[in-house]
Amino acid sequence: MYLAYLMIKDKIILGIDPGTTIMGYGLIHVKNNKPSLLHFGTLLLHKYDDHGTKLKLIFERTLHLIDTYKPDELAAEAPFFGKNVQSMLKLGRAQGVALAAALYRNLPIFEYSPRKIKQSITGKGAASKEQVALMLQRVLAIPETDMPEKLDATDGLAAAMCHYYQYKPGLPEPNAKTKLTGWKAFVSQNPDRVK
Amino acid sequence: MYLAYLMIKDKIILGIDPGTTIMGYGLIHVKNNKPSLLHFGTLLLHKYDDHGTKLKLIFERTLHLIDTYKPDELAAEAPFFGKNVQSMLKLGRAQGVALAAALYRNLPIFEYSPRKIKQSITGKGAASKEQVALMLQRVLAIPETDMPEKLDATDGLAAAMCHYYQYKPGLPEPNAKTKLTGWKAFVSQNPDRVK
Repeated sequence: MYLAYLMIKDKIILGIDPGTTIMGYGLIHVKNNKPSLLHFGTLLLHKYDDHGTKLKLIFERTLHLIDTYKPDELAAEAPFFGKNVQSMLKLGRAQGVALAAALYRNLPIFEYSPRKIKQSITGKGAASKEQVALMLQRVLAIPETDMPEKLDATDGLAAAMCHYYQYKPGLPEPNAKTKLTGWKAFVSQNPDRVK
Repeated sequence: MYLAYLMIKDKIILGIDPGTTIMGYGLIHVKNNKPSLLHFGTLLLHKYDDHGTKLKLIFERTLHLIDTYKPDELAAEAPFFGKNVQSMLKLGRAQGVALAAALYRNLPIFEYSPRKIKQSITGKGAASKEQVALMLQRVLAIPETDMPEKLDATDGLAAAMCHYYQYKPGLPEPNAKTKLTGWKAFVSQNPDRVK
């Protein structure tokens, strides 16, 4: 009986990495604590000059993914530092519209830094994109032919897997011992929003 | 007949000034080119510690305003420069969730810098908040008793009025000769989205 508390019985996690040139996303289905790949892909935004169009596409794709796959939780890659204020404003907006889709559907949100994600998946916070992709491919048994040429596609999937790794045996709530920036307080203040 | 093209016959404009401590908003009804006040107010966010809660409240309030007053266009105050990358990321997120609500309801969006807004309303780009509030009070004939103590409340209203002032006689489309940052291209690429 106790084991039941340690395991994720059935949960779908949507992972996203929102940006203004590309948004990676991935969905995993965790059943009896075993993750399997549902879907992953990218939204290519570099061909759109206009920031408004990009934001609209990010919002629509995120909402579409939520409504199609009905995830239980959202995991987002969220860099908190950037080169300059201009790029951070744009990144903030891209994050904002993606998060708005999740907020609109009352999805609990968990944010992880790029370093934390790499650390969770490869054991190294400074791992390369190739190393992260390779680990994901192995753990989720993704056929070589399904691996994307653009490794950004695995960034969203990496966020979802990072979130899955936060469910540790002995901790009934996710992330109870991991540092969550921003949303941790939200989650603790809104226990009814987290299953 | 020609005059009809120069005038706004009937249009509701929602103006917002999204931020992470306070969001000001205002609605004007323009009929036969005369603006009148519909509603204005603020969403106070300083009492919430958590960024996630703030974003959710901004999104919900903006969507609620759109669904309640059915505006035809959204005008947003959008600073493009800030002190540091951290504050810009937060501001970007606040803007992002507010814009997402408008994008979701297919509302055309127009952005104006703080300077442009002050310039449109008072004739001076460096006008004080008091001067902007006073001009709005006069032009919209707002009773003294209805004026808020916190002048941030008039910031959203100022954005709406600034947008109204972009409709100039002889210019069939708004902002045809004014500099619109970001959204101009979106509007020109999506003529069906702009009435």
